[in-house]
Amino acid sequence: MKHVNRRGFLGASLLAAAAGEAEPQEKAPVAAPPGEVTRGLAQWVVESKADEIPAAVRKEATRTLLNWMGCAIGGSGQGAVTCAIEAFAPFSGPGQAAILGRSERFDVLHAALINGISSHVLDYDDTHLRTIIHPAGPVAPALLALAEYRAASGQAVAGKDLLHALILGVEVECRIGNAVYPAHYDAGWHITGTTGVFGAAAAAGKVLGLSAQQMTWALGLAAVQPVGLREMFGTMTKSFHPGRAAQNGLASALLAARNFTCSEHALEAKSGWANVLSSARDYGEITGKPGAGWQVSLNTYKPFACGIVMHPTIDGCIQLSRENLLTAEQIAGIELRVAPLVQELTGKKTPSTGLEGKFSIYHAAAVAIVERAGGEQQFSDRAVRNAATVALRQRVTATVDPKIGEDQVRIRIMLRDGRALEKVIDHAVGSLAHPMTDTDLEDKFSGLAEGILPRDQTRRVMDLCWKIGELPDAGALAQAARRDNRA
Amino acid sequence: MKHVNRRGFLGASLLAAAAGEAEPQEKAPVAAPPGEVTRGLAQWVVESKADEIPAAVRKEATRTLLNWMGCAIGGSGQGAVTCAIEAFAPFSGPGQAAILGRSERFDVLHAALINGISSHVLDYDDTHLRTIIHPAGPVAPALLALAEYRAASGQAVAGKDLLHALILGVEVECRIGNAVYPAHYDAGWHITGTTGVFGAAAAAGKVLGLSAQQMTWALGLAAVQPVGLREMFGTMTKSFHPGRAAQNGLASALLAARNFTCSEHALEAKSGWANVLSSARDYGEITGKPGAGWQVSLNTYKPFACGIVMHPTIDGCIQLSRENLLTAEQIAGIELRVAPLVQELTGKKTPSTGLEGKFSIYHAAAVAIVERAGGEQQFSDRAVRNAATVALRQRVTATVDPKIGEDQVRIRIMLRDGRALEKVIDHAVGSLAHPMTDTDLEDKFSGLAEGILPRDQTRRVMDLCWKIGELPDAGALAQAARRDNRA
Repeated sequence: MKHVNRRGFLGASLLAAAAGEAEPQEKAPVAAPPGEVTRGLAQWVVESKADEIPAAVRKEATRTLLNWMGCAIGGSGQGAVTCAIEAFAPFSGPGQAAILGRSERFDVLHAALINGISSHVLDYDDTHLRTIIHPAGPVAPALLALAEYRAASGQAVAGKDLLHALILGVEVECRIGNAVYPAHYDAGWHITGTTGVFGAAAAAGKVLGLSAQQMTWALGLAAVQPVGLREMFGTMTKSFHPGRAAQNGLASALLAARNFTCSEHALEAKSGWANVLSSARDYGEITGKPGAGWQVSLNTYKPFACGIVMHPTIDGCIQLSRENLLTAEQIAGIELRVAPLVQELTGKKTPSTGLEGKFSIYHAAAVAIVERAGGEQQFSDRAVRNAATVALRQRVTATVDPKIGEDQVRIRIMLRDGRALEKVIDHAVGSLAHPMTDTDLEDKFSGLAEGILPRDQTRRVMDLCWKIGELPDAGALAQAARRDNRA
Repeated sequence: MKHVNRRGFLGASLLAAAAGEAEPQEKAPVAAPPGEVTRGLAQWVVESKADEIPAAVRKEATRTLLNWMGCAIGGSGQGAVTCAIEAFAPFSGPGQAAILGRSERFDVLHAALINGISSHVLDYDDTHLRTIIHPAGPVAPALLALAEYRAASGQAVAGKDLLHALILGVEVECRIGNAVYPAHYDAGWHITGTTGVFGAAAAAGKVLGLSAQQMTWALGLAAVQPVGLREMFGTMTKSFHPGRAAQNGLASALLAARNFTCSEHALEAKSGWANVLSSARDYGEITGKPGAGWQVSLNTYKPFACGIVMHPTIDGCIQLSRENLLTAEQIAGIELRVAPLVQELTGKKTPSTGLEGKFSIYHAAAVAIVERAGGEQQFSDRAVRNAATVALRQRVTATVDPKIGEDQVRIRIMLRDGRALEKVIDHAVGSLAHPMTDTDLEDKFSGLAEGILPRDQTRRVMDLCWKIGELPDAGALAQAARRDNRA
């Protein structure tokens, strides 16, 4: 996935590349002037036009939005969301924006925070595989809240423009992520919250109509507000990261709109974001001409309600269990050969809650065998405490093999009758090579909204998502996903 | 300033040390259990009792509070403050808390942000010299806003308790700063905003009566929200750092009070704050028994309205100018020998605004000779553009000498008549060795409040500050410093 021309600049050349072909028509690259990374990125965002985004890119952004809304609705009743609502309700401004899947309304900044938490709390949202960024979480809630607010003051944001801003926000955060991954992530940062602030700032700034100067400041204000450490994985604070990133990015754009000044070299300066937060960086990833299309086109959606690194294992175990009609009792042991990151992120041997189960490759393998699924139900307290699954997970071993890619797993199941079953997964379902279909996404959405919104309302929200490009007021989408008190 | 016993633990031993002597009575140190840095710190904050704080420490905290309030009032009309107020006013909750020196009221979280910006915007606030942390900025505004809010719901915070929380907040942020300085600062972080979040969380959490478990979470939530890069020095965003740190720390405490869960090892874990944000760290500075008393006792106040690193130069140049009744015309050149940090932070050769002047050692030396002062007036646009000062600053050279300490300078003035004048400053006025008196602090406060509050109101606010320990409702202090619309 290396760029054709790493020295190219992000302006017109990116728009040329946006035709969506892997090898866009060559143009003479504009060399990125030294020290102009932030300004160049800001200028590109400001100059980008909605009509120039290829249809396939808009379609993938629509899928991103739909998947994100389902996750936010599905997560809206979780403890982290309720805690945050209780903590901040006394301090919220006017009820400008909806909390998806709930009846409360909050001011725009708090709504961005809370919907961002909801959308990530199930670990079920979208993933930019190259960086493990969850792109929509910090960007979409800032945009939705802003759209509702603008409509109320007679400045409705067209759905087309919201989609455009979402595409730009994802582009900005993932390009910055590409520039510092994996060093930045390996250091311990939760990259979704650290790059997400930029995405939210750029997207909100686009909707607010910032000038290039203001957009540069907005990115600078985002740079001083990174959110998230990987140490918090397995606690409520993990989902706080994209929520707070959304709120911080939105706040950055609002300040910049008032000409709150900032460095114009926040990304690339000696004491700037990339140098301070990463031991390695490649600015060409930010300013270069893309050879593989838009970052949102590289977005993926999870068929399983847990971190992406466990998906190959779940996919393979479900397949083996279905193909062989396995029961836990038959199994003497399960040997997994996994990528190093799998062990690092999901090495919990004895999870005791559903949330902890999301960080246990042992539980994931066992529950996939026992229940032949990997949805939110399989990461509930019930599933994690199920006797058959608990017994089986103690017979799972995971061996790290640096030759195994993060999208791969080698599974070997030893049966008590002496037989051994094997499965190699190279690309799990939900990966770029094996994407979820639109119908898969609708099924996932419906499952998430079950018990939270009435079915006809769920249908209406999904229809609005698919039609986002034609909506005169994108804020209507957020309102449609509110839970009516009287329902 | 090395600790007597770096392995001691922060509990009872710190209280023993709190007698205020440089060499406290020895007690058998409690070894810090590995991986218990965050929990130990949280437990100590929760268990600390106001009555056990020595009188001298309370006195220094009172001076810290008074100096901070003067700075916040003095900065309240600056552009950064007005911009932030305009940006966030539409989203603020109820008017729960005063903006010092102004008539607006905001919700508690926004008030903490805005008062934090005001207090730092003139670069005139307090300094913990060992770490260059400005300790009050992130802590005091969170506390004042919270005190007003609690009083309105019948849970007034006694002045004594606010002072206690301020002392604890300063202790927490400066100890964490001590543990990572200078590596963390050298990397490019604005340490006031990165450690200040912890100080605000601890202080607000103390007022909210968090349990040890909740305080541990509050520190963890603070850890994921560092604010500030040194790249922003010289722009409005610098003063945003302590304000946002105050807001983030307060938000952390509010979430923790609702049992929003987090890692319990946020400071010391492999992917925790100290490892991720610093290339070096000494946890003994956080958990160790202090040999030199409380961190707030090491706080200093600026006689000059700019970064502390320029103070020796200003002090020396004012002295030379007064002693020799110098005029700019007499001077052929000024040679400064300065510490490396001076050049790094204040190397702007041709400042064009008052704010930029605060980052120019050349302007500082010249204006100190020409105007024989270093107050806010000397860092105004007017002073920076004054022809005599501009001409003289072009004849100033600054040579870095690693043997020169950050509190030192060697000044050599070559006169056109062939004479040379020399001055060595080892400890500038305002340093620990040469502190400002209470009267100096009152003069500074009055100067800052001039034109913003009527003189009798200024007198009343200062009197309330000095009496903070006896106030039944600390929130009264914030209300007293409001600007009456009708005044």
